[in-house]
Amino acid sequence: MHLFTSKFVERPEYVRELSGSVTTPAGFKAAGVAAGIKRSGSPDMGLLLSTAPCTSAAMYTTNAAAAAPVKVCTEELSRGALRGVVVNSGSANACTGAQGLADARAMVKLAASAVGADPAGMAVASTGVIGTPLPMDGIEAGIYAAAAALSENGGGDFAAAIRTTDSLDKVGAVEVELSTGTVSIGACAKGAGMIAPSMATMLAFITTDVLIRADLLQETLLLAAGQSFNAVSVDGDMSTNDSLFMLASGGSGLAVEPGSGDYDRFAAAVNAVCKGLALKMVADGEGATKTVGLDVTGAADSGEAVRVARAVASSVLVRTAFYGRDANWGRIMASAGAALSGEAELDADIFFEDICLAKAGAAGPGQPPADRLREVMEQQEIAVTLALHRGHAGHAMYFSDLTHDYVTLNADYTT
Amino acid sequence: MHLFTSKFVERPEYVRELSGSVTTPAGFKAAGVAAGIKRSGSPDMGLLLSTAPCTSAAMYTTNAAAAAPVKVCTEELSRGALRGVVVNSGSANACTGAQGLADARAMVKLAASAVGADPAGMAVASTGVIGTPLPMDGIEAGIYAAAAALSENGGGDFAAAIRTTDSLDKVGAVEVELSTGTVSIGACAKGAGMIAPSMATMLAFITTDVLIRADLLQETLLLAAGQSFNAVSVDGDMSTNDSLFMLASGGSGLAVEPGSGDYDRFAAAVNAVCKGLALKMVADGEGATKTVGLDVTGAADSGEAVRVARAVASSVLVRTAFYGRDANWGRIMASAGAALSGEAELDADIFFEDICLAKAGAAGPGQPPADRLREVMEQQEIAVTLALHRGHAGHAMYFSDLTHDYVTLNADYTT
Repeated sequence: MHLFTSKFVERPEYVRELSGSVTTPAGFKAAGVAAGIKRSGSPDMGLLLSTAPCTSAAMYTTNAAAAAPVKVCTEELSRGALRGVVVNSGSANACTGAQGLADARAMVKLAASAVGADPAGMAVASTGVIGTPLPMDGIEAGIYAAAAALSENGGGDFAAAIRTTDSLDKVGAVEVELSTGTVSIGACAKGAGMIAPSMATMLAFITTDVLIRADLLQETLLLAAGQSFNAVSVDGDMSTNDSLFMLASGGSGLAVEPGSGDYDRFAAAVNAVCKGLALKMVADGEGATKTVGLDVTGAADSGEAVRVARAVASSVLVRTAFYGRDANWGRIMASAGAALSGEAELDADIFFEDICLAKAGAAGPGQPPADRLREVMEQQEIAVTLALHRGHAGHAMYFSDLTHDYVTLNADYTT
Repeated sequence: MHLFTSKFVERPEYVRELSGSVTTPAGFKAAGVAAGIKRSGSPDMGLLLSTAPCTSAAMYTTNAAAAAPVKVCTEELSRGALRGVVVNSGSANACTGAQGLADARAMVKLAASAVGADPAGMAVASTGVIGTPLPMDGIEAGIYAAAAALSENGGGDFAAAIRTTDSLDKVGAVEVELSTGTVSIGACAKGAGMIAPSMATMLAFITTDVLIRADLLQETLLLAAGQSFNAVSVDGDMSTNDSLFMLASGGSGLAVEPGSGDYDRFAAAVNAVCKGLALKMVADGEGATKTVGLDVTGAADSGEAVRVARAVASSVLVRTAFYGRDANWGRIMASAGAALSGEAELDADIFFEDICLAKAGAAGPGQPPADRLREVMEQQEIAVTLALHRGHAGHAMYFSDLTHDYVTLNADYTT
């Protein structure tokens, strides 16, 4: 895949895209195998490992019904000293009670033992159907098979093993030119439905061979997630399993220090990679035909900007209108107004690309150019600006349209 | 229509359903005519009037993009001394700026003049497409035609004139046995889409011939709305135009006083009528095939109960699952968990009717009875209980499923 195909993602000039994956940076091995969790027989067990101790960062869903693997990672493992991740698709190990916790812990121990690593550094993630117990026999065999298959070229297999309803692999790599040389970043993700602004039903894995302190890596990841994984919506539903991992092997021998120009370049590259993956999730959103980039400007404060952006992005009326290629700015105004319930009268402006459809809360000025508007509504990516005129804060979000195919997919996906 | 067809609406024993409308209570006239606002030529202009001064109550959307008629009603008219309402469908007069305000004020003046009433007592409401100006020539002629057509049997025509995407008239009447005699309540409403928990894209009109103080009537209406119009969701989108009016003519000569048994009966009847109308909106929700009655119990406080109920009711994943007849309790757990983000681990129970699908946050106990569950999922009305075990507060909500037809309707409804 190509990380920078969306017009909403900018590639910094010192970043070059590679054909690669999580095993592109030096010091990583990965594998993906079929462990029989998915009835289809597709790959469903992945293993990612730094060949030597490394630094790490991680973020997890804050859902109060968080899945067992998320609980094990947040409560029992360190964020900063992970060395690998074992992950299965086909079953989320969520809402599985004490058995689920025991199973998640068993996955950690099995994976650590299979690769000869310390269990304290082996994270676990699951994705798939909620509420069914993991088939542990298959999982055990799968973990050993994955460990045996670990390879410096295994990033593609690993990416394939984490897919659920994704129609596209979400995998890529870049190299970043620093003053001291070149480092690389590899990444893959899964996610197409249950994608909400505060992390999606998504798993994402980012690797790099830069040498970086764990606390700085965590800060880098948090900032990047705010503008990428936490700024996309497919259906507004926050999942039980969202997890985002980043491992830095130091394999390039090149270090980045806080406040340096090289750190800024590295952080910008991580931002771009995360945003590229996140926009791929929106484009691959279940049933989606379009991506809308919504830029809320002029909010009273950043909390308000986020609230309004999320309200518009999760409005099913707004999202069906985009599916219908209907420039229905009134629905955007109504959902922004609902998010600002009780506040002063909304006198917002709304632009679709360069076309001003509403000025100071009402239609106009004048009739929009019909031909140009039709052209805009046919675009696969549409930039919408909602200027609130209430202050100076802003927030950008990216969401997909709501389509017949979304309903079909989610009415038929069985527990 | 029948107000008490839903199993979620209870008819108090001292309430008897009549075949009637807003003109059933003594002292009211109404009319509905075609003013040419709708291209289809269907009725689109309604007028409701108490033949003598009366008391009133009203509630309006709190949307910051509230429509011009809502602004005029809230800022320029008294809640307690309304005598009539002029209403048009086909155009919402929302997001129409200064011209919209002038048009809404003109509707008030024209209607008051046409019926010889004080403009201070004539409310105005509009529903339909957002962002287009009202065709005032047609509206003026329509108001005079409606005034000329006012009749003590005009409630049905009035109900027809306020419809937009409704597939059913929502109109009914009851009589209430008090200790002093019998009073009646008539009602009609419109609403099928853009139905959110805090009032819907709905207009509702309730009349009664009881003699009641305006402040007590307002309190009665607020309480009833909390369990009816504010507890339903079709798509989670709060409208710009929601308005709920209640007029009490005193035409029966029978008074209700605060704290009396007769007041309790009257208030319970108003509750039942409002809930009956609200459930009709859900059943008639755009594209809906099912109504889910969600009872959230055991919340830490009532704010939490409402927050969780609204999150579940507006989850598109939950709603598509009901459309697919899939007893996907995991999606309910996930959306409740998202609403309780950051709180202690969710150990909720979930029941579909009498079937326990999840206990203490996990599947079980045991396999649900498959035949009985299939039967439940085929029901048109499904009762779901979500027991949070966090405290003693609760909230009930009623929502429709999300279907292909909803997407079709809303992707094609053009600005």
